[in-house]
Amino acid sequence: MTMNRQVVLACRPDGAPKPENFRLQEGKMPRIGDGEMLVRVRAISMEPAIRGWLDDNDKNYFDPIPIGGVLLAPAMGQVVESKLDGFQAGDFIRGLMGWEDYSVANKNTVLLQKLDIAPDMPLTYYVGALGGSGLTSIVGLEQIGRIEAGETVVISAGVGAVGHVAAQYAKHKGCRVIGIVGGPDKCRVALERVGYDAVVDYRNTANLEAAIRKTCPEGADVYFDNVGGNTLDAMLNNMKTFGRIICCGMVATYNCSDNPPPLRNAWQVVARELEVKGFLLYSYNRFLPGALQTNLEGLRSGWLKYIEHKKVGLASAADLFCELMSGKTVGKSVLEVDLPEQEDGR
Amino acid sequence: MTMNRQVVLACRPDGAPKPENFRLQEGKMPRIGDGEMLVRVRAISMEPAIRGWLDDNDKNYFDPIPIGGVLLAPAMGQVVESKLDGFQAGDFIRGLMGWEDYSVANKNTVLLQKLDIAPDMPLTYYVGALGGSGLTSIVGLEQIGRIEAGETVVISAGVGAVGHVAAQYAKHKGCRVIGIVGGPDKCRVALERVGYDAVVDYRNTANLEAAIRKTCPEGADVYFDNVGGNTLDAMLNNMKTFGRIICCGMVATYNCSDNPPPLRNAWQVVARELEVKGFLLYSYNRFLPGALQTNLEGLRSGWLKYIEHKKVGLASAADLFCELMSGKTVGKSVLEVDLPEQEDGR
Repeated sequence: MTMNRQVVLACRPDGAPKPENFRLQEGKMPRIGDGEMLVRVRAISMEPAIRGWLDDNDKNYFDPIPIGGVLLAPAMGQVVESKLDGFQAGDFIRGLMGWEDYSVANKNTVLLQKLDIAPDMPLTYYVGALGGSGLTSIVGLEQIGRIEAGETVVISAGVGAVGHVAAQYAKHKGCRVIGIVGGPDKCRVALERVGYDAVVDYRNTANLEAAIRKTCPEGADVYFDNVGGNTLDAMLNNMKTFGRIICCGMVATYNCSDNPPPLRNAWQVVARELEVKGFLLYSYNRFLPGALQTNLEGLRSGWLKYIEHKKVGLASAADLFCELMSGKTVGKSVLEVDLPEQEDGR
Repeated sequence: MTMNRQVVLACRPDGAPKPENFRLQEGKMPRIGDGEMLVRVRAISMEPAIRGWLDDNDKNYFDPIPIGGVLLAPAMGQVVESKLDGFQAGDFIRGLMGWEDYSVANKNTVLLQKLDIAPDMPLTYYVGALGGSGLTSIVGLEQIGRIEAGETVVISAGVGAVGHVAAQYAKHKGCRVIGIVGGPDKCRVALERVGYDAVVDYRNTANLEAAIRKTCPEGADVYFDNVGGNTLDAMLNNMKTFGRIICCGMVATYNCSDNPPPLRNAWQVVARELEVKGFLLYSYNRFLPGALQTNLEGLRSGWLKYIEHKKVGLASAADLFCELMSGKTVGKSVLEVDLPEQEDGR
């Protein structure tokens, strides 16, 4: 147990990331000091926001990852050794950790949280439906969108990690739910597996704004924006007066943060008296326990059919992330870190 | 009293409006039916929002004014004859009326409100500091911006009708206040008459975003946006986390609503967890009495030094509006309608 496999940034991507931007290396097993704990990483959440941390600019909410630095992601794992009060070996935790076998966490670790793993739930769910993306869906719709039964909710990246959970929760709450997705395969998933009332295929429409309007001629009460760019622009012209836009992510801009697609319909924010509000889950910690219970209940009672896109092993990490950023995946992309030297004792 | 002078739309402006887009004509004295009242218009509020109503598109919150139609504006006047319950001859009222000597109002007149004119206040103030623009300043800062003492507030169109009142209220509430204005004359007015702590001259800076940052290196808590466009874009990169943007108007887009200046920094809405909220005063009626008292008190006690840019007579209406839309005016543009046939009985 002296080797620690790590995925590091080999060079900065220009546009969409490629596997050669990443490198798998064998690092040293970290040693912990006072106030730290050693964590065996078990599941890594692949998410578009990570793309922003790969650019060397000041446009983001974390410092850029340096060349040669270990990639970071929201992840979950099990404590191996702890010199941090309140945590002990065997505990499961979640927090921002490295793409590596073993990470060091301390009390300042972003999103650090002790996990109470339910015996009927896979560990990987705690970085998905029961982790950042799944809880983002609930907190966004409840705290920012303030959805009510009977309202029309439009969701972009509609079969993505956040979108497909958000859609099912909004349906469960009695909303009419419209998904924006790319390509016929995703349309099928949206209608048949997720249960959208209507879908718009943004890749196969000449006029996105008009295509959306056909699905909701009276406009949307709430738009859950995961993509920004042209889709957000089209939705500004499709909102009802006093509509709320949940700005959760803008994946359309992540591969081109130095030259993002422009918005032209900002005037509608005034004309329609819209509320456009950005949020990052870590600012809403107090709502996480409730959101977790919501999704646990959804998984058990069946209103939430969670779609997981999982690969196993750090050697697959770069491929999985690049696939995610190419926009081809459905559901939540998760890397399960394999356990070469020991058994899964859970 | 059989003649009614009216300003009508001669042809639609292309870009900034010119005097030839308007025509002064002698119309007939209107007759009122049941549920209506005849109002002698006394003061007309010239405001940038009117520009939007001159374009024949569906981007606005009112129907476009037809060619040959009487121009509209928030205005105040005195009831001459009333067949509307609750109103009688002699009452002063405010509401959306024509650019004309006499207008007809009914219970559906937008913004209709009976006015209690204070004896120490000029009538024209009721379409300015004590009218739409002045009350917008207060409601915007309080209800949307939720300003608190010690916060940094940036205001664009800083010496405009809304901006110069907002600035003085924010100062009065203990905020640090920064104005964005165009040209050295406006900078002088901003610092010497309005009392801004710092100003940025957007017409004389190579990099607006950097120029703003110099005045508030730690960012703004609240941005009162009256202009949209490039200034809004620059402010998106100058907000503090959880900053609030009050979207009150986007004058930068009014002369070019078919091809508005694009926003490129929308990602900051997510990264900084901003709240961007549009508002139109008529949706906040319940806050108007309090805002009126605030500004009456400000005028009387002296913390509010109101700047009025007044012309007299309907023949000056088109010039006054065009001057406003050229961005050259300071303070609130008001047209006082002259009274050729009778004395000012107040």
